Amino acid sequence: MKVVLILSGGVDSSTLLYYLLHKGYSIHALTFIYGQKHSKEIDCAKKVTEHASRIGPVIHKIVDISSIHELISKGAITGDDEIPEGYYTEDKQRLTIVPNRNMILLSIAAGYAVKLGLREVYYAAHKSDCMYPDCRKEFIKAMDTAIYLANIWEPVELKAPFIDMKKVEIVSLGLQLGVPYELTWSCYSGGERPCLKCGTCVERTEAFILNNSRDPLLSEIEWKRAVEILEEFKNRNITRI
Amino acid sequence: MKVVLILSGGVDSSTLLYYLLHKGYSIHALTFIYGQKHSKEIDCAKKVTEHASRIGPVIHKIVDISSIHELISKGAITGDDEIPEGYYTEDKQRLTIVPNRNMILLSIAAGYAVKLGLREVYYAAHKSDCMYPDCRKEFIKAMDTAIYLANIWEPVELKAPFIDMKKVEIVSLGLQLGVPYELTWSCYSGGERPCLKCGTCVERTEAFILNNSRDPLLSEIEWKRAVEILEEFKNRNITRI
Repeated sequence: MKVVLILSGGVDSSTLLYYLLHKGYSIHALTFIYGQKHSKEIDCAKKVTEHASRIGPVIHKIVDISSIHELISKGAITGDDEIPEGYYTEDKQRLTIVPNRNMILLSIAAGYAVKLGLREVYYAAHKSDCMYPDCRKEFIKAMDTAIYLANIWEPVELKAPFIDMKKVEIVSLGLQLGVPYELTWSCYSGGERPCLKCGTCVERTEAFILNNSRDPLLSEIEWKRAVEILEEFKNRNITRI
Repeated sequence: MKVVLILSGGVDSSTLLYYLLHKGYSIHALTFIYGQKHSKEIDCAKKVTEHASRIGPVIHKIVDISSIHELISKGAITGDDEIPEGYYTEDKQRLTIVPNRNMILLSIAAGYAVKLGLREVYYAAHKSDCMYPDCRKEFIKAMDTAIYLANIWEPVELKAPFIDMKKVEIVSLGLQLGVPYELTWSCYSGGERPCLKCGTCVERTEAFILNNSRDPLLSEIEWKRAVEILEEFKNRNITRI
């Protein structure tokens, strides 16, 4: 079966790519430029799809919709706010929201599926992101219905197979599937190397530790530092809600 | 109240603009370039908003998302098919569908509403377009729920106040509200002047006739020809489903 996948170049969507390829699917992957502060993830999405092509068929398109940046720029990811440090809390996650981003990307992906005559669109929403409204099951159910009804002549379904999995479980699956995490990127800060302090860096570090593994993206020194930072946040009781 | 409106520059959305202004709303209007075969409607949207500014506050933005054209181009509006002539039938409407267009535009409009801190997005879906799946009430209800849930921290609602009105009723309302229909554009064909034969031209002509009026966009000769063409289609029994 051929399906459409939204691929950011991060841990979750890269794991979903490998999961679907291992199921024998052919993938039409879309990576969007929507006004992020850096292009690291996009370069990573390219490398991950090149690597994944060894396992199965992947067609990768990079779609530049940065013309909508002015309309929706807000918060820390696309706007002027600072990227928050430490474990995610609801307040911090609110700062990293991009207004209606997932719905916009999923809508375009669904249109692409209709154009190609495909029936399913995948994205890697998961339980650890459930503070983001557009990663919650109730949104996915409503969006699935809306996409189906909007294209009832050639109906498309929305699939989020990781929705009941936590980040640690996704990384566990990815390690079994041989996902090249050294090619993925998570840090929000846009530096040359991961900052190790932002919510997504801290979450990534924790997921590897809980899998008795280490993040292959990081040098030994960086990994040591990442573990120290995580301990420090834990000791300061900056815990997940 | 400030609201977001999707404005194509055609009859329906221009009437909705005037309807909302007459209710005392301030309008943030969005017109999208998504790979249409001509820019007539976009020029018209500009002129209509300039005219409408006499009645109330209108901020108009033209958003170029033609980068998604390659992904979703299909059918007669954005693809290679010929524009069909005569009254709409389901087969003909299928040819004029742009995959998932309304969902894509509404998703961006909802993101824009969140960015501006606004609570309502309007579009001019109506009963005469109910053959298009993304103009039907069931889609609107699902999309309203999806938009609400995706942005639950700053919820946005989708409004389609014309959904129970036919084209003839919209034109009737617009004539009462003084909508400058001479500035609007409906024809799909992209010629210098309306073709008078495509589904949207025929529908427009009929709506003015049923209002005992004439289309102010057309010269007297064009109007006479439009009425003749409509009669001809009726005689050939090419009727609406």
